[in-house]
Amino acid sequence: MEDLYPSRCTDRPVMLPRLDPVVHGRWGPDAPLSRAQAEQFEALGFLILPDFFSPAAIARLQGESERLRAGPAGLRAETVITERGSDEVRSVFEIHAQSEIMAQLASDARLIEVVRFLLGDEVYVHQSRLNYKPGFHGREFYWHSDFETWHVEDGMPRMRALSVSVLLAPNSEHNGPLLMMPGSHMQYAACVGETPDDHYLQSLKKQEYGIPDPDSLRRLAEPHGVLAATGGPGTAIIFDCNLMHGSNSNITPAPRSNAFIVYNAVCNRLVKPFGGAKPRPEFIAAREVRPVRPGRALDAPLAAAG
Amino acid sequence: MEDLYPSRCTDRPVMLPRLDPVVHGRWGPDAPLSRAQAEQFEALGFLILPDFFSPAAIARLQGESERLRAGPAGLRAETVITERGSDEVRSVFEIHAQSEIMAQLASDARLIEVVRFLLGDEVYVHQSRLNYKPGFHGREFYWHSDFETWHVEDGMPRMRALSVSVLLAPNSEHNGPLLMMPGSHMQYAACVGETPDDHYLQSLKKQEYGIPDPDSLRRLAEPHGVLAATGGPGTAIIFDCNLMHGSNSNITPAPRSNAFIVYNAVCNRLVKPFGGAKPRPEFIAAREVRPVRPGRALDAPLAAAG
Repeated sequence: MEDLYPSRCTDRPVMLPRLDPVVHGRWGPDAPLSRAQAEQFEALGFLILPDFFSPAAIARLQGESERLRAGPAGLRAETVITERGSDEVRSVFEIHAQSEIMAQLASDARLIEVVRFLLGDEVYVHQSRLNYKPGFHGREFYWHSDFETWHVEDGMPRMRALSVSVLLAPNSEHNGPLLMMPGSHMQYAACVGETPDDHYLQSLKKQEYGIPDPDSLRRLAEPHGVLAATGGPGTAIIFDCNLMHGSNSNITPAPRSNAFIVYNAVCNRLVKPFGGAKPRPEFIAAREVRPVRPGRALDAPLAAAG
Repeated sequence: MEDLYPSRCTDRPVMLPRLDPVVHGRWGPDAPLSRAQAEQFEALGFLILPDFFSPAAIARLQGESERLRAGPAGLRAETVITERGSDEVRSVFEIHAQSEIMAQLASDARLIEVVRFLLGDEVYVHQSRLNYKPGFHGREFYWHSDFETWHVEDGMPRMRALSVSVLLAPNSEHNGPLLMMPGSHMQYAACVGETPDDHYLQSLKKQEYGIPDPDSLRRLAEPHGVLAATGGPGTAIIFDCNLMHGSNSNITPAPRSNAFIVYNAVCNRLVKPFGGAKPRPEFIAAREVRPVRPGRALDAPLAAAG
């Protein structure tokens, strides 16, 4: 398959244009997003939906999140990632396959309707995880486009995937919230270098490859600056697979946590990784496609917003 | 001299009450701060004064800051601190003694009037420096009370000192601004452990001693949370020597820089360090007291605000 988004194969960074649509569905009055929401996602690459889940639903997710963090019996050890230099859990992967409640979240009918609209296809879970950013010592995560990694390391052919971050704790300006460069999803910052085998073992703790260069980042931040995705528990943040994002460290006492689900269009299933290295394991990048069947909503549907 | 604020001498953290006033001058209609400002400083431990310096004055300070950062002839090498693992300049110390413009800043008549009022005495410069927090890779600075260090490592007897940070670049919520715990200056979080000789050589790059414990920090943050001191160039941030503060990392493209001057009351001059180790060098903690003579203001005096 032709590589439309080559990266990590030259010794200087290149900025390439996006070749894929952002909103793949066609908007109409029946769409699950307002026209303004669809237009914002198209132009800026993200949507912040406060109170997408009710306090009752979030309480269930929070409880399950704490249970999984404690490493219960049955949780596969390789899916649990700890902080560098400590035993503190940073992420638990493949939560939709290891927890009934998280499976229910991943197939929440209201959410899936939005995701299908944006991707214009049946969808499946490419990756899911719980992220814990502890208070006092939450580490920064440097700027990156998820798609760059998914393309090079996992073999995702096109930009037809998105991430949903469901906030389980208050994300303020101070406790290391998701920082985004609005509009950056329209360009592809190809990185220098190549990818070693088993890069993921390190990259989940600290990135060293696939890092955009300062000049590209400056250019991407120019039009709209840097925006923090803040909100209370229950907020859903949906962002395009190629949006440049990262987060600062968190020295505040307030921990931060979220449930993170990546959906890919079924037509965009993984092929051989474009970087040439062996594929990352299934729990990080699903190669087996199981289309999500919309399940019972975690919350009763909201009244139509018109 | 009796040690009223013992720290780093037990194996568990202790919270002690502040034994000194915060505003040492007596407020009256002639005071250089409004009554509300004086009361805020007393209660919360800081003041943010937007546009304290004019754009013209700031342009001069910015130019001088860049000149000093480049390491001009005459700058003493030991006063220049670089980032861990790079040659990038993080701080230049003793700027008031190495630069005429910075000396003028440190003796700015309007500023000195405020500082003298708050400290209720003649004042001298305990420490001065330029701080550069680069874009993309600005490191975090963990929570600390300056006084704890100045007391233990420098021998500052009482809480009768304050810091003035003059912003030379925009400090937003995202580029690693000063984070403060309002009201935390009323308690003294004594730390565990002891101080090795020449600790300052490391501590300027990364703190490992004199670090408050999580429980103390949680208690200090409880009443008022965490506040970011944001503002544009020209903003002056004045904060008490015992205010708990720190900053997150800065992955944004926007660098952050400020001129930082610590004033101590002449009556509070340094004695033998309470931690027992040898004193830090003069460029970090002045042992020779030279009272500041108020000089020409960097800006013409503003009209009285009433």
